[in-house]
Amino acid sequence: MKPKVTIIMGSTSDLKVMNEAAVFLDQMEIPFEIAALSAHRTPDKVAEFAAEAHKRGIEVIIAGAGGAAHLPGVIAAMTPLPVIGVPIKSSNSIDGWDSILSILQMPSGIPVATVALDGAKNAAILAAQIMANSDKALFAKIVDFKAGMAEKIEKANRDLSEIKFKFKTN
Amino acid sequence: MKPKVTIIMGSTSDLKVMNEAAVFLDQMEIPFEIAALSAHRTPDKVAEFAAEAHKRGIEVIIAGAGGAAHLPGVIAAMTPLPVIGVPIKSSNSIDGWDSILSILQMPSGIPVATVALDGAKNAAILAAQIMANSDKALFAKIVDFKAGMAEKIEKANRDLSEIKFKFKTN
Amino acid sequence: MKPKVTIIMGSTSDLKVMNEAAVFLDQMEIPFEIAALSAHRTPDKVAEFAAEAHKRGIEVIIAGAGGAAHLPGVIAAMTPLPVIGVPIKSSNSIDGWDSILSILQMPSGIPVATVALDGAKNAAILAAQIMANSDKALFAKIVDFKAGMAEKIEKANRDLSEIKFKFKTN
Amino acid sequence: MKPKVTIIMGSTSDLKVMNEAAVFLDQMEIPFEIAALSAHRTPDKVAEFAAEAHKRGIEVIIAGAGGAAHLPGVIAAMTPLPVIGVPIKSSNSIDGWDSILSILQMPSGIPVATVALDGAKNAAILAAQIMANSDKALFAKIVDFKAGMAEKIEKANRDLSEIKFKFKTN
Amino acid sequence: MKPKVTIIMGSTSDLKVMNEAAVFLDQMEIPFEIAALSAHRTPDKVAEFAAEAHKRGIEVIIAGAGGAAHLPGVIAAMTPLPVIGVPIKSSNSIDGWDSILSILQMPSGIPVATVALDGAKNAAILAAQIMANSDKALFAKIVDFKAGMAEKIEKANRDLSEIKFKFKTN
Amino acid sequence: MKPKVTIIMGSTSDLKVMNEAAVFLDQMEIPFEIAALSAHRTPDKVAEFAAEAHKRGIEVIIAGAGGAAHLPGVIAAMTPLPVIGVPIKSSNSIDGWDSILSILQMPSGIPVATVALDGAKNAAILAAQIMANSDKALFAKIVDFKAGMAEKIEKANRDLSEIKFKFKTN
Amino acid sequence: MKPKVTIIMGSTSDLKVMNEAAVFLDQMEIPFEIAALSAHRTPDKVAEFAAEAHKRGIEVIIAGAGGAAHLPGVIAAMTPLPVIGVPIKSSNSIDGWDSILSILQMPSGIPVATVALDGAKNAAILAAQIMANSDKALFAKIVDFKAGMAEKIEKANRDLSEIKFKFKTN
Amino acid sequence: MKPKVTIIMGSTSDLKVMNEAAVFLDQMEIPFEIAALSAHRTPDKVAEFAAEAHKRGIEVIIAGAGGAAHLPGVIAAMTPLPVIGVPIKSSNSIDGWDSILSILQMPSGIPVATVALDGAKNAAILAAQIMANSDKALFAKIVDFKAGMAEKIEKANRDLSEIKFKFKTN
Repeated sequence: MKPKVTIIMGSTSDLKVMNEAAVFLDQMEIPFEIAALSAHRTPDKVAEFAAEAHKRGIEVIIAGAGGAAHLPGVIAAMTPLPVIGVPIKSSNSIDGWDSILSILQMPSGIPVATVALDGAKNAAILAAQIMANSDKALFAKIVDFKAGMAEKIEKANRDLSEIKFKFKTN
Repeated sequence: MKPKVTIIMGSTSDLKVMNEAAVFLDQMEIPFEIAALSAHRTPDKVAEFAAEAHKRGIEVIIAGAGGAAHLPGVIAAMTPLPVIGVPIKSSNSIDGWDSILSILQMPSGIPVATVALDGAKNAAILAAQIMANSDKALFAKIVDFKAGMAEKIEKANRDLSEIKFKFKTN
Repeated sequence: MKPKVTIIMGSTSDLKVMNEAAVFLDQMEIPFEIAALSAHRTPDKVAEFAAEAHKRGIEVIIAGAGGAAHLPGVIAAMTPLPVIGVPIKSSNSIDGWDSILSILQMPSGIPVATVALDGAKNAAILAAQIMANSDKALFAKIVDFKAGMAEKIEKANRDLSEIKFKFKTN
Repeated sequence: MKPKVTIIMGSTSDLKVMNEAAVFLDQMEIPFEIAALSAHRTPDKVAEFAAEAHKRGIEVIIAGAGGAAHLPGVIAAMTPLPVIGVPIKSSNSIDGWDSILSILQMPSGIPVATVALDGAKNAAILAAQIMANSDKALFAKIVDFKAGMAEKIEKANRDLSEIKFKFKTN
Repeated sequence: MKPKVTIIMGSTSDLKVMNEAAVFLDQMEIPFEIAALSAHRTPDKVAEFAAEAHKRGIEVIIAGAGGAAHLPGVIAAMTPLPVIGVPIKSSNSIDGWDSILSILQMPSGIPVATVALDGAKNAAILAAQIMANSDKALFAKIVDFKAGMAEKIEKANRDLSEIKFKFKTN
Repeated sequence: MKPKVTIIMGSTSDLKVMNEAAVFLDQMEIPFEIAALSAHRTPDKVAEFAAEAHKRGIEVIIAGAGGAAHLPGVIAAMTPLPVIGVPIKSSNSIDGWDSILSILQMPSGIPVATVALDGAKNAAILAAQIMANSDKALFAKIVDFKAGMAEKIEKANRDLSEIKFKFKTN
Repeated sequence: MKPKVTIIMGSTSDLKVMNEAAVFLDQMEIPFEIAALSAHRTPDKVAEFAAEAHKRGIEVIIAGAGGAAHLPGVIAAMTPLPVIGVPIKSSNSIDGWDSILSILQMPSGIPVATVALDGAKNAAILAAQIMANSDKALFAKIVDFKAGMAEKIEKANRDLSEIKFKFKTN
Repeated sequence: MKPKVTIIMGSTSDLKVMNEAAVFLDQMEIPFEIAALSAHRTPDKVAEFAAEAHKRGIEVIIAGAGGAAHLPGVIAAMTPLPVIGVPIKSSNSIDGWDSILSILQMPSGIPVATVALDGAKNAAILAAQIMANSDKALFAKIVDFKAGMAEKIEKANRDLSEIKFKFKTN
């Protein structure tokens, strides 16, 4: 099946974070591919990837990077597709601030849809929401997914009502 | 013509920033509506808006807010549509840090596609990119828009080549 | 006994922090309830809770949340009761800065009484101080509690006077 | 009429911020007093004030301060009353960060109910909410006040619906 | 022997940091005392200590505190003696930023001589430098101490010259 | 009269801040000198100054600098005298954070007594407190100065009691 | 004369900062060129420039950018030449933090020699120092330039010695 | 063989970070020396080193330091050679912010080429790039090194293409 989403990262050490995006897309049955390309170490490959992605049927790009995280912005500069950026708190990051600001603060004209630090799952949900625009079955799955989250919290609330009694004795 | 994008803000004082989103959508001939609803002051209206938006044909929501900026996240919690958040450096904001973190750091399950501080134009471009997924004419306009940006910078470069000579005399 | 305080949190993983609030309220013999509701995952339940709390006899609400911590502010928007916010340094938080700013920087008209990062015990003390306004017995307990803190420090001081001698030999 | 709230500040230069608290209390017909006492320059007066306030009928203390803002915490240490702290972005403050952290990060046992930077009006609303606990008339006023805020935003929304048309010509 | 320096801290958990000050003073044979008094939990004791210290022969006060660290400033407000503040990265601190700003940013008129985060040894050296002003023997010890530091670094340099060869083989 | 304090700064543009130190020392009748030496532009002069200061009768050095503010630390490294550092929010500073951290975070062994951002007056008060250790007349002046500060605040408080009535009409 | 240094910036609005680099190079008689190319808006031109620069005789590249400042890093990724990065506090920057971190925090393997915020002159000095490595005449000019800086500060010091007397009257 | 680069650090505890610079220089067959000198503890030795380095044939200086990291700037002030600064996240550093700002924010006239936090390898690469200016063989090695980095990432990408299949079952 031809991939519709690319999950791309600057270094394979980012895989443990970006993996959550793959799991969610798989769960939604959205075909995807994973790639490691560095804005700095393989600039030509990044340029080629970005210029060709939409021609290959890719609809959304999810790009994760840490430190001076240029990958999402560099790709966004070279594709007409929406790019979702995942700031990663990698070992060479200053508590994640560098990754966040390098991805978020893009200049006018070149947006990157930034999600929370290490928020790869949210990036995948956002990708699904974008694709659900013209895919009613996917839209229905997203509605189900949201309902499931509520149910989990409501169950937690019911459990908590009982926990409470261990503090109160009278 | 029925609006496809809602530009929503927490306070009319945010209009001077959010206006740039309206201008870009208008330029792309994407029908939109503007609304002011506060996550804190009109929670019921926000809930009603968020629950109904996709039923009215809205495809993307752009939400701007400053300070403890809850509006984008609160809407994202109640709609299956993609929500783009614009952190605003309003007068009650701490240099924008509060707006950025309140919008960006959403919990797992509820993404907000965050753009740069005061980046309303980028939010509109992102909205257009999302909608262009299933709209070839819009896709073509985005490609044109990007080419136009490059042309502007290249012209600036040609101008600079001449400016340079005022420093060099030999 | 009908609860007078609600301790509410966005996720059960916040319980290990919020538990300290429960312990203090129990110690002061203030009846309370614990609930888990998420501003993002169960917005309807939050709205219902917030609108009904004062009608059920709740006098103060203590709300804890991490990351883009919207729960305290969203509740404060929908209740006339005083809301105390506890920023939590959860795993998805940037050293707590996101939680603090998302709770503290509420817009004019919707205050949240914010306490220190992970300061659930202080939230409970504040709740007790608020309720002691019209409850002389509780007021007396608070005075006792404060005196107890001083005694503990003074004992520590007496202990330190002796420790000192291990550094000084002449 | 005997004051029930004290608005206290470390320096008269804080009056332009703290004034908003006075205006709101006046509007709610809550009797109050204003005082300038410095935790550092008049420590004895602060101690005397804090120890006596509840005996004079004061029910809530609102304390504003900038820079290394010790006043709210120092008062909280010496009174059983709830203390609301207003961090002020004074001229000797580092963008307000020092004021916020000096007031918010109180140790366990001594809470200060902190509001947003320069959030004196919110401090007064919080004071009113605290006092409304045992004052049904005041409670009703707060409910009215909140309804008024919603109305203002809804009117803004109606105005915006019309503004929109200046961008859209077809 | 009557103490000339007081090392004071807000909590005995600060002892592991403040201990370094004691060790240095002991090494310089400067008599000192250690005390635990909290600006918030034992305000009266702090006031009494601060007002009396210079009458008992104390010449310099070293005060350490974490979080919203008021102790050094509160003491400085009540004594004519020089007060040295040690910001402590305690468990309830936000990476030390709160402690630093709460101690450093004192208002005009009430200085606290602030040293580095957890810099208790430097506080003791500073105390010795202050006292050496009128004590030639102590002045000589400080000169010796500084020379000793240089010697240690110079020895490290000599050692490094040899380590280097393990990288270079030609 | 031979100077006992040196006020030194890295650039004459710092004079408008450091001037406050001069005014206070003059008021206390402490003889002082002012110098501009840069740790970076005149390192030899700084070294000579630092090595000789105590031999010329200087007792305390007040050093102000902005940006990567090395002057106070560099001087502290070469003198046995106490050095007071004034971080300056100069035009080349990032909101003062660079100046503060460059001065405050000195390594173990080389303390700089750091005061608030732009806190030149507090530096001078601290210098006076240090010198008062062995000068009873100066000690008495400091006690008077502190009493004067309290009186000013108390007068402000009396003035405020009257201002209040413009808000209250019943 | 063939240029040896390229001063490149992402937007012509950066010219007012980058101009200082041009002035210094001109003063040192180092031939240079100025260009405006955006990592995001003209990625192909940037790639072409970076790949060709050293073949045209360019020896050092000075690149300035604001916000999510990718230009210096993107160029560094595609040239073997040393790249000096100038973070710019542009209007779309968060107090310069985004520019600094996006340029400084480059991953291992792709250094950018970063200078202070808006430090274009320092970038030019650094370029001159690099080129002076194999150019004795330029080396001599740098030595002269440094001596000139010292002279300016020393003159300022002489001027200050006289200013001082307006504070001292006895 | 006479060293051409000095790797200098303020403390031997910085060796574990600075070691990476040595390894890279060794790999490039650039002769170097390692030294430990402290701007604060051995100022005379630093001055002597800085003044003499270029006379001994040193072409580039790499200086690493943590906390209030003055070493790179102090050396830069006393040498005409290019100085590369490595901010180190040492134990006495506030998450590295102090080191970064103390090295980066040098005043006009005294640049330090700053690299990422703990970026010693990048400092060595930069040194090699500077020296390659007049050394064609070294230039060729740098080009090879860059090509090697790309190859590593491309191999990672090939590996990832296969990993992907564990998520996808249809």
